[in-house]
Amino acid sequence: MVKHPRVVIVGAGFGGLQAAQSLAGAGADVLLIDRNNYHTFVPLLYQVATAQLAPEQVVYPVRTILRKASNIQFRMAEVQRVDFSAQFVETEDSVIPYDYLILATGSQTQFLGVPGANEHAFSMKTLEEAVALRNHIFACFEQAVHESDGLRRQQLLTIVIVGGGPTGVEMAGALVEMLRGRLQRDYPTLDLGQVRLILVQAGDRPLADLPAKLGTYTYQRLRQLGVEVHLQTRVERVTAGAVHLPEQVISTETVIWTAGLEASTPETSDEVLRATKGKLLVRPTLQLLGQSNVYAIGDLAYVRQNGVPLTGVAPEALQQGVTVARNIRLQLRGRAPKPFNYFNKGRLAIIGCFSGVGNIGAIAFTGFLPWLMWLGVHLVYLPGYRNRLLVFLTWLYSYLLGDRAVRIIFTAPDAPVRKCQPLQEVKH
Amino acid sequence: MVKHPRVVIVGAGFGGLQAAQSLAGAGADVLLIDRNNYHTFVPLLYQVATAQLAPEQVVYPVRTILRKASNIQFRMAEVQRVDFSAQFVETEDSVIPYDYLILATGSQTQFLGVPGANEHAFSMKTLEEAVALRNHIFACFEQAVHESDGLRRQQLLTIVIVGGGPTGVEMAGALVEMLRGRLQRDYPTLDLGQVRLILVQAGDRPLADLPAKLGTYTYQRLRQLGVEVHLQTRVERVTAGAVHLPEQVISTETVIWTAGLEASTPETSDEVLRATKGKLLVRPTLQLLGQSNVYAIGDLAYVRQNGVPLTGVAPEALQQGVTVARNIRLQLRGRAPKPFNYFNKGRLAIIGCFSGVGNIGAIAFTGFLPWLMWLGVHLVYLPGYRNRLLVFLTWLYSYLLGDRAVRIIFTAPDAPVRKCQPLQEVKH
Repeated sequence: MVKHPRVVIVGAGFGGLQAAQSLAGAGADVLLIDRNNYHTFVPLLYQVATAQLAPEQVVYPVRTILRKASNIQFRMAEVQRVDFSAQFVETEDSVIPYDYLILATGSQTQFLGVPGANEHAFSMKTLEEAVALRNHIFACFEQAVHESDGLRRQQLLTIVIVGGGPTGVEMAGALVEMLRGRLQRDYPTLDLGQVRLILVQAGDRPLADLPAKLGTYTYQRLRQLGVEVHLQTRVERVTAGAVHLPEQVISTETVIWTAGLEASTPETSDEVLRATKGKLLVRPTLQLLGQSNVYAIGDLAYVRQNGVPLTGVAPEALQQGVTVARNIRLQLRGRAPKPFNYFNKGRLAIIGCFSGVGNIGAIAFTGFLPWLMWLGVHLVYLPGYRNRLLVFLTWLYSYLLGDRAVRIIFTAPDAPVRKCQPLQEVKH
Repeated sequence: MVKHPRVVIVGAGFGGLQAAQSLAGAGADVLLIDRNNYHTFVPLLYQVATAQLAPEQVVYPVRTILRKASNIQFRMAEVQRVDFSAQFVETEDSVIPYDYLILATGSQTQFLGVPGANEHAFSMKTLEEAVALRNHIFACFEQAVHESDGLRRQQLLTIVIVGGGPTGVEMAGALVEMLRGRLQRDYPTLDLGQVRLILVQAGDRPLADLPAKLGTYTYQRLRQLGVEVHLQTRVERVTAGAVHLPEQVISTETVIWTAGLEASTPETSDEVLRATKGKLLVRPTLQLLGQSNVYAIGDLAYVRQNGVPLTGVAPEALQQGVTVARNIRLQLRGRAPKPFNYFNKGRLAIIGCFSGVGNIGAIAFTGFLPWLMWLGVHLVYLPGYRNRLLVFLTWLYSYLLGDRAVRIIFTAPDAPVRKCQPLQEVKH
């Protein structure tokens, strides 16, 4: 029996999962490793944080996605170290050798050196963080109901979003939708109209990656919806109960940080060359500089196209996943990998309350159409027919009725997954 | 303006929530207090633990249930102490006076003094516990996949259920369904047929509250399904990695405790008289002995009907909720409360794999019909149209396809609900 070369993929996000799927049937044993047993559909996490979707609807078990590919295995583990010269990755309790390695460990929140942000601000990069934020927002409402001090009540009802990228804008719009809808009926003694929503943005417009026209529309639309937007404003400090801007201090219990990301890498045996935000430098083929059998993709890799760095959206990672799979197949046949070429299908962003923005080729458009297109595209890309159906039904429900389904404050136990014990001596 | 008398209800389980709903429109200000902002539909928790239903599908926000009742308020808090003479209940940060009090705090798992059970066994009385159990079962499967030691693998794949009441039987059957279904495709290198399911029961048959014929059927059916049933067997000890029976020690990572309950009461100013399992002694009207304006209902109250104690099922609590509401309405009009009379509509229990048992009046029946009736009854009683639809769709999916939807190991963060801080001095 021929022993197949082994491809190890670290990370089951958009890039890693796509790479695994594109290696189905290749003459290689593929092992996909992730710390969770599920793939997270990150673009919909803000809808979990705003009680619109249930956590289970935006994640999908990796094993189920890979059911049909017999050459692909999955391991739930956290890769802690990569040894390039000896060609293995290390997890907490095992050493896994590889012939080819795909690093797809994504990014994590970066607080840009703002004091107190790490301790006091909420981020929204993982399912856990989205649920924690949902719990926190509803816990603040519960406290506000029986709070007699007006200043304290306003503090509980003030939400500050830091960062005017797609996540920040989506979150602001979704909160407006939630507050304007039937949720008010749940709090008859509390005026949800009192909730202050504030978006703080360092640049001169939201959605800076998109054409200026769309940023301007988004700014105006957010203001129409009642969001206070502070442009060209940097957060100086976050403390327990307040966010400090250059000109003012806003008393708030809820600071949502969507402003910065940095590459999330395991420790490596050799020094790796990095660009901005800790991203790894790769060749045009996505091979790591100096390591011809190691690839880096997605938020982890610093990739330029026509001299401009890619922006870190899901389609980039997906297309890179396809490319590395193709390149490894080429290498397996003794041929040279080919460069990655990103095909930009366009960009869509949702603002909320039936409005969005879109940019396809030279066309920039705003309003209801990009909003609807955004929903459609995300429904198509969401993994799993069942989740697609449930999310579709939930969207019908929430957008037609203006209601929110998942208003529960569900505090999971401190240690839900008990560490399984090693085998004990058993006396018979 | 007339100040209405204040009715405080502690606990939003079946009894407390029903009492609140039955007091809608009464000439009283009603305050319902629960530590969670949601009502838990406990009979379906085992389906959460076996990855069939999502946690959000078996709970419902209390505020939404009470939307239409303008005289009913809700407070999310944990009642720590009740003062009968001064007529108030104490939470962590407030004192709430009452004119009438309904105690409906339910029950909690009781480990019957078995050493190690509290530390090492899983219970399934709350949503958190059900999710923790689901996480644990799937974490054990993940470990078993790459476990080379056969004994250790068998330990990871052995599940012991302690207690042969409805919860234990349902859990055993649901695990059989899960293991026989499409889940096997997720674990191509693991033989799920190797999973050992063991049910340990102190009495001489499962479902001891039901006619003997039904217990015998259940015993035979469970054996047919491959469950090892140990009758007249008491657990002596649970340790990390094993459960100790009189005759043998079973090496297992998963012990599920469904064997004992005890009343769960806040501290009280005066001594209260208690029956077995810590239950409070009440008059036939459900008033606490010696406290004419305090009622106890549900698992908390020791109620006999025709000399036989009630068994602690949901319909008893629901009917008691209706009765206390009626009795308080009588008291508000200066009239005497009337005795509670339980109308037993019958009992249904599900075994799994399309079989169940039922007992209505003098008729005891088994097989597919009670299975289907069980599903129907629980669907009707589940709060919320949306949850009903989702659960119905999920049941169609899981029973027709033999698949499980919610196979995710979702470890919530350590402190998902941050304690909101008191208002800080803010410098402008």
